[in-house]
Amino acid sequence: VSSIKISIAQLNYHTGNFDLNTEKIIRDILEAKASGIDLIVFSELCVSGYPPRDFLEFSDFIERCQAAVHRIAQQCVGIMAIVGGPELNPVPEGKDLYNAAFVLGDGVVKQIVRKTLLPNYDIFDEYRYFEPNNCFQLIECKGTKIALTICEDLWNINSNPMYVLNPMDELIKLQPALMINIAASPFSQTQIETRKQVMKDNVIKYHLPLLYVNMTGAQTHLIFDGGSMALNAQATCIDELNHFGEDHGYYTFDAKTKSLEVLHKHQPYIQLSNMEQVRQALVLGIREYFLKQGFSKAIIGFSGGIDSAVVLALAAQALGVDNVKALLMPSQYSSDHSISDSLDMVNHLGIKHEILPIQNAYQAIESTLSDSFSGTTFGLAEENIQSRLRGLLLMAHSNKFGYILLNTSNKSELAVGYGTLYGDMCGGLSVIGDLYKTQVYEMANHLNQSGSYIPQNIITKEPSAELRPEQKDSDSLPPYELLDEILYAYIEERKSPRQIIETGKDEKIVSRVLWMVNSSEWKRLQAPPVLRVSNKSFGPGRRMPIVAKYLS
Amino acid sequence: VSSIKISIAQLNYHTGNFDLNTEKIIRDILEAKASGIDLIVFSELCVSGYPPRDFLEFSDFIERCQAAVHRIAQQCVGIMAIVGGPELNPVPEGKDLYNAAFVLGDGVVKQIVRKTLLPNYDIFDEYRYFEPNNCFQLIECKGTKIALTICEDLWNINSNPMYVLNPMDELIKLQPALMINIAASPFSQTQIETRKQVMKDNVIKYHLPLLYVNMTGAQTHLIFDGGSMALNAQATCIDELNHFGEDHGYYTFDAKTKSLEVLHKHQPYIQLSNMEQVRQALVLGIREYFLKQGFSKAIIGFSGGIDSAVVLALAAQALGVDNVKALLMPSQYSSDHSISDSLDMVNHLGIKHEILPIQNAYQAIESTLSDSFSGTTFGLAEENIQSRLRGLLLMAHSNKFGYILLNTSNKSELAVGYGTLYGDMCGGLSVIGDLYKTQVYEMANHLNQSGSYIPQNIITKEPSAELRPEQKDSDSLPPYELLDEILYAYIEERKSPRQIIETGKDEKIVSRVLWMVNSSEWKRLQAPPVLRVSNKSFGPGRRMPIVAKYLS
Repeated sequence: VSSIKISIAQLNYHTGNFDLNTEKIIRDILEAKASGIDLIVFSELCVSGYPPRDFLEFSDFIERCQAAVHRIAQQCVGIMAIVGGPELNPVPEGKDLYNAAFVLGDGVVKQIVRKTLLPNYDIFDEYRYFEPNNCFQLIECKGTKIALTICEDLWNINSNPMYVLNPMDELIKLQPALMINIAASPFSQTQIETRKQVMKDNVIKYHLPLLYVNMTGAQTHLIFDGGSMALNAQATCIDELNHFGEDHGYYTFDAKTKSLEVLHKHQPYIQLSNMEQVRQALVLGIREYFLKQGFSKAIIGFSGGIDSAVVLALAAQALGVDNVKALLMPSQYSSDHSISDSLDMVNHLGIKHEILPIQNAYQAIESTLSDSFSGTTFGLAEENIQSRLRGLLLMAHSNKFGYILLNTSNKSELAVGYGTLYGDMCGGLSVIGDLYKTQVYEMANHLNQSGSYIPQNIITKEPSAELRPEQKDSDSLPPYELLDEILYAYIEERKSPRQIIETGKDEKIVSRVLWMVNSSEWKRLQAPPVLRVSNKSFGPGRRMPIVAKYLS
Repeated sequence: VSSIKISIAQLNYHTGNFDLNTEKIIRDILEAKASGIDLIVFSELCVSGYPPRDFLEFSDFIERCQAAVHRIAQQCVGIMAIVGGPELNPVPEGKDLYNAAFVLGDGVVKQIVRKTLLPNYDIFDEYRYFEPNNCFQLIECKGTKIALTICEDLWNINSNPMYVLNPMDELIKLQPALMINIAASPFSQTQIETRKQVMKDNVIKYHLPLLYVNMTGAQTHLIFDGGSMALNAQATCIDELNHFGEDHGYYTFDAKTKSLEVLHKHQPYIQLSNMEQVRQALVLGIREYFLKQGFSKAIIGFSGGIDSAVVLALAAQALGVDNVKALLMPSQYSSDHSISDSLDMVNHLGIKHEILPIQNAYQAIESTLSDSFSGTTFGLAEENIQSRLRGLLLMAHSNKFGYILLNTSNKSELAVGYGTLYGDMCGGLSVIGDLYKTQVYEMANHLNQSGSYIPQNIITKEPSAELRPEQKDSDSLPPYELLDEILYAYIEERKSPRQIIETGKDEKIVSRVLWMVNSSEWKRLQAPPVLRVSNKSFGPGRRMPIVAKYLS
């Protein structure tokens, strides 16, 4: 028999939750076995969850990973399975661990394949923990020779390769019939297309069909969309699993003809719009942050502005309207529409709310500071007091009733430091901190087209922090269209001031914007974790010095 | 002539400040040349400052590094110099940069030596940016053959080596007469002794004298103590430069006899006590954070407790008493001694202070929340309101007058989350966040023995947050001696709960403490940068998941 049946399992793992992860994996193995599957494949580091981060430095964590692999192996009788996990390096030289794929069969670990290319850029830190592999071997299932690689191992195929080695260049010499790649590849707005292209490029280069197995779910700031896929030897994507949820794929593969076929075909994947991808990602990111920490209820400071409105709508979709509460905290500088627009939205969606005017508490604080501040005029300090008082009231609700405070800062204001640390920058999770302001507007319109409700006046009115009379964002910032273009060029594209000016931007504005970005690194260091949907989000993927002289 | 004169320059660099760094380096080169020096050696990545972090991903930053190297090279006529900087990788394969040492002479770059071992653990991220070297060559100065390595290249000599390669094992085959290592090695409480031992181990292994050139100064959380040194072929440390300041060393080396001798010997290095090392490190860390950002004044919330007292004393030493201000913010739950002890200290040291009672503002906030909180009883929410109100008042002073708020959290409370986020966890810099509470007491006593003044009652009274009547830290926490032992075992030694219990600790207490540590990861993520003085401080050196199931 040259034909084997393979299934791929795209699951959602909880980092460090060995019982949960192991039981999910074993459940799928037993189901696959019952369906006559020969080989079932799980994703990278699935026994521990990804990314395990510095858990990997704890020996008891590694012991639990090993125990999980052996517990799973015992179930692999009459079926083979591939699971990802850390492996102890058997020799003293080099790092103590490998990022490994365990090939399980006959109730034991039959073979171990190690990751060669260790991503260590942006949000990735794999060389912190793992020794790179430099020894290449195929695996075998019922006589079918398979080139098994781990995530990054297939990504070194552009014109400026990051690594000096291509693992598949070595493996292809051993004449495999099929490629399998197990991955933990997080979502970004371009990742779904990029990932598919990279997999196609590998098939085109090596003339072999490919099964690609990703994970789903979210781990704090990282969202894993899944999108596992099967490509035949002609580089056609013959099957694509769901995005943003668990799913399975079932295939037959004939080693003689190198023919990969789908056993139970999925509905053809309909490319989601960019904003719909991001919406699903953020909803999953919120939901997972709460679920995996055992929380259910969110609180949001609702100013009647576009940012808090979008966060409120997304939170309601993620957690259910009954689990979301809005606090309206007007001051003497708040416009009438800040309340009326807010009430329009919460009443329409059925979201619980309270109105807590802050004037009295603000005046008590002013009078506490009256001696200290005597002779000074109203300014940034007084503006920030209002913002911090609101943060204090939100956190008081959080502490009293067990709400998690969702932060409503957007990427543009996080970038230029247009926000108050310990004020509107409070929160357990930043929902839209990776969306530029212009994208927040796009999201608002998209939400209105897909069943949510954000009042038109919230979308059309001029943005304002309402911390002093007649304040407008445009008093302090360039128009958002221009600002966001400059920010994108600097943050995502890492262009120099000169390069940005050469695209036709005003030199003074560029200098001021970049100065604002650089001089707020200290603030961003204390910002909540940001759900990552771009290729360069604030947080662990962007590590700038605090005390430094910046070039702008 | 087989004898050459070498000087080493231990300087303080400002990351990204190319003019400053370049001018310092050129000044020293010209001075050395005037003194008849043949070779002057500067530290790792000195042209950019260390660590440059993601600056290295900006092409204009790399261009400025290259320009600086060439500007310095032009001055190297009649003298050779070694400077550290990033080098563009000439081939497309591999990362785009090397961490390099540029050997300058005759007005040009004569040779480039690349770093082989790239530290990527704890606070280090070098593999994020750099390709490891795998090609070995000596450098030459007036016929003297020298094995030049960069920092980590000499550190792979223990029994569980982190790397599969030892650069000196390759270089020794080329028969050098002398070893030179350029470094950027940050301070920790054990680092001075460890570093000296590692350098001795290299001399013993390779039978060659060694010049070791470190940097000094601080970069946000990282403090570089310097301690550059010269070891003769018998592994005797014949000269050791200052710690915590700029310094120079001058030597003659005879390649025939392999004899390294000191030209201008330093005062013999007197081993500082552990607490004195830490005191000097923290004072340098505070001073540098302010200087390099162009600030001069600090504000501190002074509760009359030991933590804020120690921070106040250190800040006064770092910035001068005139640049430090204390805010005393008593509530109805504050003890009398919280004010009297505070006044004793600030009056004795001549530190400016203000007293801002928070009762009125607290009551205004309570009444703002009275409907929301009706039917609930005084608890954590109300305690945190007081702490956050104090944070708000401190930040108001910071915003109004340009003070930087210094955070006063200690490592024990940061570890167990015994602090209020956006309250006492506020601040631009955490001064004692890497000192366990028991070490804060040691520091207080040490400060009193070295010219500062912390009232005895502050040291002897029972610790309390004073956020509710009769509150004591011991209501919520085990005794600090026990707590700190458990924390050290978990954080520094990464022991498992079982291993900690086996050292004789109560199982329930261990479980509760580790649960507290793990469940406050989300809080610590938003803490200010912590001046690092241990081998495992909170911040970028410890990267734990937020949303995860912890083993304890």
